[in-house]
Amino acid sequence: MPSTIYDVTTWTIPSAPTVTAFTDIGAVINSIIADIKTNQPSQASKPGAVIYIPPGDYSLKTRAVIDISYLQIKGSGHGFTSSSIRYNAGNTSSWWEIFPGGSRIRVENTDGNAEAFLIQRSGSPRLSSIEFIDFCLDGVSFTPNQNSYTNGKIGIRSTTDTDSVRIAGMGMVYLQRGLVITGADALAVTNNFIAECGSCIELVGSGQASLVSGNLIGAGPTGFSIFAEGHFGLLISGNNVFPRGKSSVHLKNCSNNNITGNRLHSFFAGMVTTDGACDNNLISGNHFLRNRESFPPFQGVPAPQDDLFGLIHVRGSGNTIVGNHFSFDVPPANVLPSGATPTMVLVKSGSNNYLAMNHHAANVGVRSAVLDGSTTNTKVLDSGTAAEFQALGAATYGFRATP
Amino acid sequence: MPSTIYDVTTWTIPSAPTVTAFTDIGAVINSIIADIKTNQPSQASKPGAVIYIPPGDYSLKTRAVIDISYLQIKGSGHGFTSSSIRYNAGNTSSWWEIFPGGSRIRVENTDGNAEAFLIQRSGSPRLSSIEFIDFCLDGVSFTPNQNSYTNGKIGIRSTTDTDSVRIAGMGMVYLQRGLVITGADALAVTNNFIAECGSCIELVGSGQASLVSGNLIGAGPTGFSIFAEGHFGLLISGNNVFPRGKSSVHLKNCSNNNITGNRLHSFFAGMVTTDGACDNNLISGNHFLRNRESFPPFQGVPAPQDDLFGLIHVRGSGNTIVGNHFSFDVPPANVLPSGATPTMVLVKSGSNNYLAMNHHAANVGVRSAVLDGSTTNTKVLDSGTAAEFQALGAATYGFRATP
Amino acid sequence: MPSTIYDVTTWTIPSAPTVTAFTDIGAVINSIIADIKTNQPSQASKPGAVIYIPPGDYSLKTRAVIDISYLQIKGSGHGFTSSSIRYNAGNTSSWWEIFPGGSRIRVENTDGNAEAFLIQRSGSPRLSSIEFIDFCLDGVSFTPNQNSYTNGKIGIRSTTDTDSVRIAGMGMVYLQRGLVITGADALAVTNNFIAECGSCIELVGSGQASLVSGNLIGAGPTGFSIFAEGHFGLLISGNNVFPRGKSSVHLKNCSNNNITGNRLHSFFAGMVTTDGACDNNLISGNHFLRNRESFPPFQGVPAPQDDLFGLIHVRGSGNTIVGNHFSFDVPPANVLPSGATPTMVLVKSGSNNYLAMNHHAANVGVRSAVLDGSTTNTKVLDSGTAAEFQALGAATYGFRATP
Repeated sequence: MPSTIYDVTTWTIPSAPTVTAFTDIGAVINSIIADIKTNQPSQASKPGAVIYIPPGDYSLKTRAVIDISYLQIKGSGHGFTSSSIRYNAGNTSSWWEIFPGGSRIRVENTDGNAEAFLIQRSGSPRLSSIEFIDFCLDGVSFTPNQNSYTNGKIGIRSTTDTDSVRIAGMGMVYLQRGLVITGADALAVTNNFIAECGSCIELVGSGQASLVSGNLIGAGPTGFSIFAEGHFGLLISGNNVFPRGKSSVHLKNCSNNNITGNRLHSFFAGMVTTDGACDNNLISGNHFLRNRESFPPFQGVPAPQDDLFGLIHVRGSGNTIVGNHFSFDVPPANVLPSGATPTMVLVKSGSNNYLAMNHHAANVGVRSAVLDGSTTNTKVLDSGTAAEFQALGAATYGFRATP
Repeated sequence: MPSTIYDVTTWTIPSAPTVTAFTDIGAVINSIIADIKTNQPSQASKPGAVIYIPPGDYSLKTRAVIDISYLQIKGSGHGFTSSSIRYNAGNTSSWWEIFPGGSRIRVENTDGNAEAFLIQRSGSPRLSSIEFIDFCLDGVSFTPNQNSYTNGKIGIRSTTDTDSVRIAGMGMVYLQRGLVITGADALAVTNNFIAECGSCIELVGSGQASLVSGNLIGAGPTGFSIFAEGHFGLLISGNNVFPRGKSSVHLKNCSNNNITGNRLHSFFAGMVTTDGACDNNLISGNHFLRNRESFPPFQGVPAPQDDLFGLIHVRGSGNTIVGNHFSFDVPPANVLPSGATPTMVLVKSGSNNYLAMNHHAANVGVRSAVLDGSTTNTKVLDSGTAAEFQALGAATYGFRATP
Repeated sequence: MPSTIYDVTTWTIPSAPTVTAFTDIGAVINSIIADIKTNQPSQASKPGAVIYIPPGDYSLKTRAVIDISYLQIKGSGHGFTSSSIRYNAGNTSSWWEIFPGGSRIRVENTDGNAEAFLIQRSGSPRLSSIEFIDFCLDGVSFTPNQNSYTNGKIGIRSTTDTDSVRIAGMGMVYLQRGLVITGADALAVTNNFIAECGSCIELVGSGQASLVSGNLIGAGPTGFSIFAEGHFGLLISGNNVFPRGKSSVHLKNCSNNNITGNRLHSFFAGMVTTDGACDNNLISGNHFLRNRESFPPFQGVPAPQDDLFGLIHVRGSGNTIVGNHFSFDVPPANVLPSGATPTMVLVKSGSNNYLAMNHHAANVGVRSAVLDGSTTNTKVLDSGTAAEFQALGAATYGFRATP
């Protein structure tokens, strides 16, 4: 049987023997995938392969296209280091090292494509069980403004439906978009380090029964740390989401999902934003910390939402928001709009939303819950004083102040 | 020193050199284990070994018996794909592939045994630190009825006590029983994909201090997704349990366990079932979705319990059920018994059970909590209206309606 | 390009060719690190390497010093077995094996140092993305008293700041201190088995945005299972912490952290202890079990705190303690001080602490919450009867008894 174990450093592209993984790892991987296909001609036996990326500095000039199931691409190190600190540090000539490392792919497409990896196949079945494990995708720079979070680069994108894909232990840094997955079923995005990317995790189109757990994540100020669209059965838990994304978790037209046990830190309101029609979601046991941007290069970035938007912004019905903690610590002069009373939870639309036993600790007076005049039958229990609660217009609700 | 690294594709069984991993990986693994023993004769130094299974299609005809500690069996891909969709898809001649893949073992015992892997050793100490990592156990078919979930096959079974076993990143599919562990101590079942099995995870006999976390799981309609018997200190968290098991989590005679932060989806009542005497368990921060089977081949399967059984069915005392969300969305014509008002939580026995701050969103009128007449001193707080609460017979309780 | 993949069993130290990984794996690793540096002279390309430790019994005589980023040290098995059971078992001559295994390093320094691994580098940037994966650090014995948990040995210690370090899948046993990390940023300590160590996980100095998740942990009676100092944004979740540590989680001067969804079991009060000024932490969805030491050799160990200390001991302000379960099952004769009413949550200092929906099941009468006379504006809701609540002196509070 031919081997199913490939090492990018020892593969030679038959048609281009001078290309190496160090000069174009994308071309090497595409050539390996072609070889895998040659070796599994039987419809009944296509077990895939593993492509190993040893620690090293690789350049990707050609997009790698994955159109086979059961391919595991694996490195030996997520290799994250902060490029943001480095680019803002001034003279780094005495530094021990200046770039990320591990099994590191510099995303440097010269093929006109944005993606380092594209997952795409038409026909049936959906691609299944593709795995990205323990290597680094580094966009290298946001030239010319290293604080812009824009360079057009995407780490991994899928454009057709997939099943049981696994993204684990990866590092992604200085990409405009880290991970963009379309039509996920039973996707697992776990234990990754995805930070200093414009947006980190975007689950677009639709999806179901997926996990985003145990990740260390932090997007840029105009991007998403975790975004999901049209998903149900998504479990977002155990993540440590640090700034500076415009939100920590953003759900769009997502019902019956779970945001539980995360640690969320942001410089803006809208930390958990629901958008469109988002019904029957559970938001429980999360720690929210909203304070002011501490890194001078970013202190001038305008807030994407003001402080009346809510640390949690709810659109939709039947959502359950319980057992969360809110820390709010923003200098009064930086509250927006000036002089406003910041909102912890804003129920913007819908009925039968349920808020209970959420507690806040704030350096200024806040509203623990605000109900839009369009909302009906909201419950707000033990989540603050009567003075901290505000029901606008014709809102209907049950309210019990914290004794 | 002899190598402790084995590759199933390069091993030759001394007594049967024509057998390969492709023809009988079980016989190969048994031969490797015999070699490991030969190489570690000292009681004071038996570090075990790693057996590597590269991506490939392997057949297991002979049960592999693990009777040494510190054996890691590792592949490079869980290889899940839906066999259920495929077998119900009609003509699949144009499909790219039709079977699971990765490091895939077809469980095809011809030795009269049910198990692919048996963990068993008498004497002291218990077997410790056996690890199954990142490969696929595929039962291939449920002949003659591919929707029967019965073929007598078991993926991994232990019959003697173990300590610190780890099952991680595995794929299991089309087995009647995926994982059956007896007498577990400090077991970790994490990040696996175990679906389309009759039952998925069964922890039997007794056990303690174990983890079932971060798994994607879904059993057949007569089986268990997660079952535990006689366990204490079991932490079931962060799992995404999809249909169609007869329950999502079933505890039998289990006290002092934790079911927290899971996403549970079922087509039946009894999503969390406690059975026998189950005391002092915590069920918190879980999302429950109960709707109707959507896949036509299974719509005729009879419900194992009617809708009065409770999405959570409590037997025992001192249990804490807080901060859960229930979505109930079943066409009224499909509610059982006909015309019944479905129950979210049924407290069937015991005293000092505590339900608080559980919220539901339902398409029909429901009972948020029902107390059997035998129950005493139950607390039901902020979990629905007075009309949604029902205390039968001589039940004693404290109740506070959601305002 | 030189290889970045090293195997400790095949490396020869140029200056000491007779030393092997079996005689001194620390010296071998130091020699490998020197070689890695030789091979990455460019500041712009220092991707690191992977050092592989196959299953085997290795001795470490010389401390390994890690002063490069992106180094992954990886084995094939955490190899935990209980040495405590073995040392207390009497005659073990008939046992199958008597020591831990897997990729096992016996920590046997003869160099005068305490640590097996030291992470240390001055200058900029901080060391990043060092990874310890899936091997065993075994202190071998606590001579002369195997139940003393003292031998001066430390598994892994860092003394300078680090970023994005990962400790995953490790086993540690019979070390006085398992893991000691100074100045962590975005550290991930996940899926480890660290038990029968004096202390298990100590995050000292300060730190931020880190994860301690999915671990199986249990310290000795005078040590810490999980200790953190000066941290914010630490997420401690999904851990199974078993006895016999003097606490399960100990926070010192830590604000804005999350202790969620853990299973905690202890033989002492002070299971979650906050110490110094600990503000705005969330403690939710945890299962606490406090019962009596069951292992005869340890039943005489004096309790580090009496039962008035609280299973949760709170110092600081703005903390949120919601949705936890407490099981208390201690023979009345063993409650300390004799005849005392044990305390579930003691609020010892601070203001604006919030306790709600915590439930207990106890074999004796308990206080569900006690407020020190110095505390102000505490809230205690639905966490027990009026008789179970005690506010001392001038404490101010809001209280609502469970109905």
